[in-house]
Amino acid sequence: MRFDEAYSGNVFIKSHPNFEESEAVIYGMPMDWTVSYRPGSRFGPARIREVSIGLEEYSPYLDRELEEVKYFDAGDIPLPFGNAQRSLEIIEDFVDKILAADKFPLGIGGEHLVSWPVIKAVYKKYPDLAVIHMDAHTDLREHYEGEPLSHATPIRKVAELIGPTNVFSFGIRSGMKEEFEWAKENGMYIAKFEVLEPLKEVLPKLAGRPVYVTIDIDVLDPAHAPGTGTVDAGGITSKELLAAIHEIAKSDVRVVGADLVEVAPIYDHSEQTANTASKLIREMILGWVQKRNA
Amino acid sequence: MRFDEAYSGNVFIKSHPNFEESEAVIYGMPMDWTVSYRPGSRFGPARIREVSIGLEEYSPYLDRELEEVKYFDAGDIPLPFGNAQRSLEIIEDFVDKILAADKFPLGIGGEHLVSWPVIKAVYKKYPDLAVIHMDAHTDLREHYEGEPLSHATPIRKVAELIGPTNVFSFGIRSGMKEEFEWAKENGMYIAKFEVLEPLKEVLPKLAGRPVYVTIDIDVLDPAHAPGTGTVDAGGITSKELLAAIHEIAKSDVRVVGADLVEVAPIYDHSEQTANTASKLIREMILGWVQKRNA
Amino acid sequence: MRFDEAYSGNVFIKSHPNFEESEAVIYGMPMDWTVSYRPGSRFGPARIREVSIGLEEYSPYLDRELEEVKYFDAGDIPLPFGNAQRSLEIIEDFVDKILAADKFPLGIGGEHLVSWPVIKAVYKKYPDLAVIHMDAHTDLREHYEGEPLSHATPIRKVAELIGPTNVFSFGIRSGMKEEFEWAKENGMYIAKFEVLEPLKEVLPKLAGRPVYVTIDIDVLDPAHAPGTGTVDAGGITSKELLAAIHEIAKSDVRVVGADLVEVAPIYDHSEQTANTASKLIREMILGWVQKRNA
Amino acid sequence: MRFDEAYSGNVFIKSHPNFEESEAVIYGMPMDWTVSYRPGSRFGPARIREVSIGLEEYSPYLDRELEEVKYFDAGDIPLPFGNAQRSLEIIEDFVDKILAADKFPLGIGGEHLVSWPVIKAVYKKYPDLAVIHMDAHTDLREHYEGEPLSHATPIRKVAELIGPTNVFSFGIRSGMKEEFEWAKENGMYIAKFEVLEPLKEVLPKLAGRPVYVTIDIDVLDPAHAPGTGTVDAGGITSKELLAAIHEIAKSDVRVVGADLVEVAPIYDHSEQTANTASKLIREMILGWVQKRNA
Amino acid sequence: MRFDEAYSGNVFIKSHPNFEESEAVIYGMPMDWTVSYRPGSRFGPARIREVSIGLEEYSPYLDRELEEVKYFDAGDIPLPFGNAQRSLEIIEDFVDKILAADKFPLGIGGEHLVSWPVIKAVYKKYPDLAVIHMDAHTDLREHYEGEPLSHATPIRKVAELIGPTNVFSFGIRSGMKEEFEWAKENGMYIAKFEVLEPLKEVLPKLAGRPVYVTIDIDVLDPAHAPGTGTVDAGGITSKELLAAIHEIAKSDVRVVGADLVEVAPIYDHSEQTANTASKLIREMILGWVQKRNA
Amino acid sequence: MRFDEAYSGNVFIKSHPNFEESEAVIYGMPMDWTVSYRPGSRFGPARIREVSIGLEEYSPYLDRELEEVKYFDAGDIPLPFGNAQRSLEIIEDFVDKILAADKFPLGIGGEHLVSWPVIKAVYKKYPDLAVIHMDAHTDLREHYEGEPLSHATPIRKVAELIGPTNVFSFGIRSGMKEEFEWAKENGMYIAKFEVLEPLKEVLPKLAGRPVYVTIDIDVLDPAHAPGTGTVDAGGITSKELLAAIHEIAKSDVRVVGADLVEVAPIYDHSEQTANTASKLIREMILGWVQKRNA
Repeated sequence: MRFDEAYSGNVFIKSHPNFEESEAVIYGMPMDWTVSYRPGSRFGPARIREVSIGLEEYSPYLDRELEEVKYFDAGDIPLPFGNAQRSLEIIEDFVDKILAADKFPLGIGGEHLVSWPVIKAVYKKYPDLAVIHMDAHTDLREHYEGEPLSHATPIRKVAELIGPTNVFSFGIRSGMKEEFEWAKENGMYIAKFEVLEPLKEVLPKLAGRPVYVTIDIDVLDPAHAPGTGTVDAGGITSKELLAAIHEIAKSDVRVVGADLVEVAPIYDHSEQTANTASKLIREMILGWVQKRNA
Repeated sequence: MRFDEAYSGNVFIKSHPNFEESEAVIYGMPMDWTVSYRPGSRFGPARIREVSIGLEEYSPYLDRELEEVKYFDAGDIPLPFGNAQRSLEIIEDFVDKILAADKFPLGIGGEHLVSWPVIKAVYKKYPDLAVIHMDAHTDLREHYEGEPLSHATPIRKVAELIGPTNVFSFGIRSGMKEEFEWAKENGMYIAKFEVLEPLKEVLPKLAGRPVYVTIDIDVLDPAHAPGTGTVDAGGITSKELLAAIHEIAKSDVRVVGADLVEVAPIYDHSEQTANTASKLIREMILGWVQKRNA
Repeated sequence: MRFDEAYSGNVFIKSHPNFEESEAVIYGMPMDWTVSYRPGSRFGPARIREVSIGLEEYSPYLDRELEEVKYFDAGDIPLPFGNAQRSLEIIEDFVDKILAADKFPLGIGGEHLVSWPVIKAVYKKYPDLAVIHMDAHTDLREHYEGEPLSHATPIRKVAELIGPTNVFSFGIRSGMKEEFEWAKENGMYIAKFEVLEPLKEVLPKLAGRPVYVTIDIDVLDPAHAPGTGTVDAGGITSKELLAAIHEIAKSDVRVVGADLVEVAPIYDHSEQTANTASKLIREMILGWVQKRNA
Repeated sequence: MRFDEAYSGNVFIKSHPNFEESEAVIYGMPMDWTVSYRPGSRFGPARIREVSIGLEEYSPYLDRELEEVKYFDAGDIPLPFGNAQRSLEIIEDFVDKILAADKFPLGIGGEHLVSWPVIKAVYKKYPDLAVIHMDAHTDLREHYEGEPLSHATPIRKVAELIGPTNVFSFGIRSGMKEEFEWAKENGMYIAKFEVLEPLKEVLPKLAGRPVYVTIDIDVLDPAHAPGTGTVDAGGITSKELLAAIHEIAKSDVRVVGADLVEVAPIYDHSEQTANTASKLIREMILGWVQKRNA
Repeated sequence: MRFDEAYSGNVFIKSHPNFEESEAVIYGMPMDWTVSYRPGSRFGPARIREVSIGLEEYSPYLDRELEEVKYFDAGDIPLPFGNAQRSLEIIEDFVDKILAADKFPLGIGGEHLVSWPVIKAVYKKYPDLAVIHMDAHTDLREHYEGEPLSHATPIRKVAELIGPTNVFSFGIRSGMKEEFEWAKENGMYIAKFEVLEPLKEVLPKLAGRPVYVTIDIDVLDPAHAPGTGTVDAGGITSKELLAAIHEIAKSDVRVVGADLVEVAPIYDHSEQTANTASKLIREMILGWVQKRNA
Repeated sequence: MRFDEAYSGNVFIKSHPNFEESEAVIYGMPMDWTVSYRPGSRFGPARIREVSIGLEEYSPYLDRELEEVKYFDAGDIPLPFGNAQRSLEIIEDFVDKILAADKFPLGIGGEHLVSWPVIKAVYKKYPDLAVIHMDAHTDLREHYEGEPLSHATPIRKVAELIGPTNVFSFGIRSGMKEEFEWAKENGMYIAKFEVLEPLKEVLPKLAGRPVYVTIDIDVLDPAHAPGTGTVDAGGITSKELLAAIHEIAKSDVRVVGADLVEVAPIYDHSEQTANTASKLIREMILGWVQKRNA
């Protein structure tokens, strides 16, 4: 108990105070220790919660209000600093519990590697799982400087676990030549540069399937998300990313979990990236949570 | 007298030194005391003037130069700090004088509530007035936390004064469900998300009518205007907003006054928002001032 | 319950997970709505918690470690936005409960007005209370623009409640002439400009008495605390403020509660002010909490 | 010698350590002394090199890798501070040497005036030269405040040297009326506001000709390049500029030299502009260097 | 007239609206075109006025209030961009008029070169003039890169005009060897590193003499004034600079004019330098203006 | 070869172009991969070089000029990203070569761990070595999260190598209790909080001995060095640190090598920390290099 139910502390706006009664659980994964270029995403979840106070509770896109969905904000998962292996175990264990309680896991990163244990947990529950991945980067390296647990490897590990043909990447504009080749050889779907149009083509093929969606904020152009470690020119706009979220919401896939990762406040001087992230999360809550049982 | 006519101080670039000879009057309304999320727009007018020194005087869009229009910069209206009611009275009184002198009022905010007394004054002179409103937010609340004079209410008050069917909002992507419903029930026009295309449809219907245009800088996407209190992802580009200004310029409406509000320098780390605002004002001067007598 | 005691979320470093077992309670008061110049301190408590992760747990000044003191972090008190009167009532009620449970209240602002309801609550328990006040500003106005509940009035209200001769201000370098005169006429102690030396003179006179200490971060020079609303040149260094905390710690006064207010993250570009605040709070915990029963 | 070939210092990522073996030479021109509005581009080349460490070495746009091209990074040319005339002579002399060694000159500014001596040198080698110019500004003034060597004049000087009909400007949205008129009267091509579509029309006409490409980063919208001296709303996106580079790469022109100018780090708070510039340079290397002998 | 006396625009707080009735005149000199390292001080005067709204009107140091002194704010002198020679003539002419009207000139820079024409004008009126100069830099070069009108030369020119023995520099910690030697050889006083103690020694020797005081904000340590072009470690604190101003105020010299130069807002991320400058100006007004007739 | 000796690229101001003829060698160690709180110092050396252009070449403190000392800037040592063990080997090998050539090694970090291999190399040459260490932190952990190669361990490793009684730490204000105890038990000298006075006591005892000096920029107060990973309130001023450098310069110790570490540009918004660092390095060059043979 946080002293008194009436005092809720730093949580995402309109979070429900009670875990049991909630349909979804928001949780932060404040880890960035395998990042190679510019770290800082460990502070992303806290900042996104902070600025969520500026959000309207109603979505004119989806014509729904936050009070129509009950979601609990579990705070940041305490992770052992600098220990990637143990951190990932703790995350997987945490998500196991959320899924055991039949709730929708909605994670906030942290670096992209955090998605790996989450998807492992989700896959145990949904063996027919497909993954939709929006990102500037392939994240398909087998290892990075010899290290298989790296911010550059999570999608590779996911693809190896659930099968490359069940992974669909969108907006990719950066990666090693080998990564693109591996994807091609293994039948993994990669939409280079674009998100919305290829997504419209892919979604019908996934109708009825359980889908996990992982969004790296750097799929946005640096103009729209300067507050991230690896900015990469030539990305999509926030308007397009919102449209992609809505496209999934109105499709026939069953979204069974999702995350948004890589917001790094230190590079986000006007907090525009954190504000955008909090709006994206609102739309994910309103558009996706009920889709689990679609 | 400012000591000597030769020394003009901090004014918008190419301002005319003489009030009587001017067609238009630029004035700042440095008020932000009813803002709920992130204040700071009280310093907007001064910053916009400062950076206007970087502007070219010619518009390749309109093929006109600033020296073709005489406009006087009256500085910031001194407003009693923290007193919204009295501030609004002073603004209304100030604009009454500008209109009595038959000049075009071109205001710079400050929070959006400052548009309310300006439009009251303009409406007294032009009872057939229509209002074009570009914004991320509806601003249609009846009151905010019980307070009818709030940054969240000005368009509601305008709609109640001049009639909801005479108000046309564009680019709206944020608001309470009740606000959208109120607009719908009362016949007020709202173009969600988009500006340019719906504007092209509306303008012909307003041909010949006196129109006041109020632009909240947050109609732009945060990528294009990080320097504002409430950034909201999914907005339009500065290129689209420029096109909207030009669309009005070449239409058959009679623009009789205008404002640009909510630039907040503290969040504008490269002064890009202030620079954009100063360019928008140049285009408003060159495109709209002469339209009063169209 | 926060889902599972093992997951603690955004709390001050080394906080104890259990309220009942704790000696002290940290709580945020995220309010800044009566601020006149540059608001933003509503986000102070959350940022201070965030950066506390960078602290060492040991104080070489006091030769004590955080694990020697049990303190619970209750998060931010949810305050009704824009309603000062109701916010103050909620704060007072909250602190009443902490005191009823016989715990040390350690508050984080927010604007300085939040200290007023806290001290009201503390005074009810300790009628012999003295207040030590470190600040750049007198905060002794009777009202500000006609409003008695303002960031400029809390110490005046405190002085009127517990008697001006029981209030001791240090480091003051800004205020109206009338405020200094009122203090002088009413026997209230004000040490202009300096903190440490006058504090050494005052502390012996307060030996054995219950004392509440309120620190406005702007008592520091802007060089040491740029991240605050009203920066005022000519202040003390962080080294001097640390020494003042330690001077109180080794004195014979009984510290029965304390707060640190006015950290505003938006002006704190390197987070140096928040980092300094988190270190000051560590020293307050280690130096003062046990002094309640001195 | 830099002490030991193994230690390369601050160079653009994957630069080849040996000048003689390289096809292209990268060099900085750290000059901004004729800038009128906001200086700072003298520090651009160093910052772009710094952030190039974050680049992937593979371009998914062009399906090429940096190791396929040998380029030497010669560092910044030491320029005599404040002496424009002498600086330009040094630059010209430097580029003469690069061209004499039959290497591709790839310059990084610095203010736009640095392109003038480079193009002079290139023109000596390629008398049939055409220039493609992407910029927000015409840069066609005859002189600026009486000074012919100014950041506002380089394209005019180029046009006068190689003939106005051999200069093709794209994306222009700012300039004096006289500049646009001069271009029109003299048969110089200017595509206002847009880059990609007009470029597609122009390129076929230049097939087989040697072309120098000069890109002012402010051709990008301020959202995409806040880190420059003169931000000007209404520009193109980084996605469009990348597409323009690729359009040239796949055309039949022979690119014989290029530059990217006006990145100013002091206004580039998240280093997004420098990161974008480094990606643009990667694409220029991969897409253009081999085209010299096309 | 600025439309109506009631509307005063951007002026230093509590400025008197009427020139004739004022004892002192504040004026901005927005020039930075001879600066060698980091320009930007041209925007200093405007920013200092903006933030002056946050000042208390009472000085607890001097026990005086701003309403006890009448000063007029003449705005920024319009200077021909990039033309140092003509700018200096305009400034001198402007100050001639202020002095002819028997008012105290209180200038705000701009780069330090602006002090040169001001002192020329003051010297014409007070042939017995002494100059007190507080700065990190000697500013004693005979020329800079061959240019005698440079930010590095003003004190040399002053010393040559009024005689080196009439110039007293304090806080100097940077300069060429030749500059220190020239001063020594010519009997000019330089207090290296320190301000307050040497000032106490010098002031009695100047008793009764007319003195002009020029303060370069970089005499402060970068911790106290990051917002300036050439930050130089090892400076004095704002507390010491305030004490120096007060020391002059209580001395027997006759201050007949003063300036504060080199505040550059672009490097002043929390506006702490501008806020400090506005406080320094308040103390100069309260402490020095009446001393003209001492 | 860098193409032509005349073009020197990004080097510390006034560096000598020839390695062999130089007395000292400046080199960057761009590594920050074991940092726990806020990384970013990998970009420190490049930024310090960049801003060194703003330095005067003369020191009024030491009355010497940079041209009196020949030093070569070798650029940044290329380090294998993320591999601490190999990076340290490369650094040690690099410094071995400098020492073999009988030159003074002057390193710029990077995180503090880089000092460890440097001191190992220096100790091989000078078995009688003493180390002077100025820092906010003890850096005496045996391991950090099980890792002996960490930013928290270098001084421990040094102490174990050369003997704890040969290590002298100054300015320490942060660390674990166990670290202070270990130092005490092993006879290592630690001056808590202060630098200058204890240094004056220690230096005479080291007369004639070879001394390596390692300075962590965070020994400065955050007011003086915001641009570092772990800011810690209560530090010394830049004036005091300059005085400490000069105290060593005039002592009888033989300085045989030195470094300055932990400048992190991303937190250094006005570049004040980098500017201060470049001035410190100038004083180290002028004051210490010749002392090697003292």
